[in-house]
Amino acid sequence: MYQLFFSPGACSLASHIALIEAGLPFELMRLKFGDGQQRSDAYLKINPKGRVPALVTPHGILTETPAILLFIAQMAPERHLAPLDDPFELARLQAFNSFIASSVHVAHAHGPRGSRWASEPTSLEDMRRKVPETMRAHFSLIEADLDGPFVMGERYTIADPYLYVMSSWLEADGVDIAEFPKVEAHFQRLRARPAVIAALEGEARGVS
Amino acid sequence: MYQLFFSPGACSLASHIALIEAGLPFELMRLKFGDGQQRSDAYLKINPKGRVPALVTPHGILTETPAILLFIAQMAPERHLAPLDDPFELARLQAFNSFIASSVHVAHAHGPRGSRWASEPTSLEDMRRKVPETMRAHFSLIEADLDGPFVMGERYTIADPYLYVMSSWLEADGVDIAEFPKVEAHFQRLRARPAVIAALEGEARGVS
Ligand SMILES: N[C@@H](CCC(=O)N[C@@H](CS)C(=O)NCC(=O)O)C(=O)O
Ligand SMILES: N[C@@H](CCC(=O)N[C@@H](CS)C(=O)NCC(=O)O)C(=O)O
Repeated sequence: MYQLFFSPGACSLASHIALIEAGLPFELMRLKFGDGQQRSDAYLKINPKGRVPALVTPHGILTETPAILLFIAQMAPERHLAPLDDPFELARLQAFNSFIASSVHVAHAHGPRGSRWASEPTSLEDMRRKVPETMRAHFSLIEADLDGPFVMGERYTIADPYLYVMSSWLEADGVDIAEFPKVEAHFQRLRARPAVIAALEGEARGVS
Repeated sequence: MYQLFFSPGACSLASHIALIEAGLPFELMRLKFGDGQQRSDAYLKINPKGRVPALVTPHGILTETPAILLFIAQMAPERHLAPLDDPFELARLQAFNSFIASSVHVAHAHGPRGSRWASEPTSLEDMRRKVPETMRAHFSLIEADLDGPFVMGERYTIADPYLYVMSSWLEADGVDIAEFPKVEAHFQRLRARPAVIAALEGEARGVS
């Protein structure tokens, strides 16, 4: 049994969807960001970084979305959620997820979380204004690379729920997803998957 | 034969060191950032993101440090540069490298590269002022977790050259590495490794 610490609609949703796709047993542990629960003493013992996701496993606690996603894929090899037997394809997948974590997610965070990197209200306002431009630049690269129904081509992998979550943020970021037709089709395709529907329902209820 | 696109002292140094530790044959391809070569048409065909590192392999091109490092470890399993047979330990390693890419490297980049996320000179100045604080916060977490001679404990892995590169940036970031004694000892330990010495010499010469 795993425990996933999450906040509804946050990047933890990617790990949540992957757990369902993998068929692994887990419990949802909701943190209320509005109440600052991610910075509570109790949660900082789980993840000293004060962020979601954190995955409690029988071996210990994991953080960081790309690492959690790879672990989930490895725990359910029969679901083929990553090309585990092909180092180059696996690296391509990890490159995509790493780009999401280090560039796309970071670009988005400059809207709601600019105070991580600057202090003055004028700087935070400046950052917020630039979010549509940076998100658009990153999604243009994703759009150009998206060749099949899924990020890695014909097969659904752990890259897909991660892209799905980023796509779900575009509207709040001031970007019309319709600017990226392949991304939009991917988003609709993902939204129709039972695992995605179940994850969204689970996060709305706050239980697994 | 691999080709590594790099800029001296940039994050590409981690992949460079790892290639040497892995004993893989490679050629160094220097980009002059001062001349904007990372944004040249020729290089954008290699990496449309206009960044280093990019690793040209017989299977295709890889980008993103955590992905390139994992690939290098997989290409030389006999060197044990990653716990490839233990999914949990591998995920712990990937979590560390993902934290570097998405938080530590990003915090550093707000000094020299703030214009990625904001436009006004006052915002860039504000970001630069905050770099020591964010780097210190991230390195405090790393210091607290560093238990053995290496990031993963007793064994040297692909996390070590990546941490080494981040540590090498601290001085420019306005942080005294001596505030973090275990990180400093790690930095000295790495600096004495033949692979690190060879990589630094190679980057100074611009050839492999
Ligand atoms: N690099 C981390 C980033 C995690 C992260 O920033 N999570 C956000 C939610 S999307 C969070 O917990 N924010 C709460 C806060 O900043 O207080 C990952 O990829 O998992
Ligand atoms: N997420 C990428 C980041 C790559 C990156 O930002 N590289 C920097 C050098 S450390 C770069 O190429 N900067 C050139 C520029 O921004 O023009 C990775 O981890 O490889």
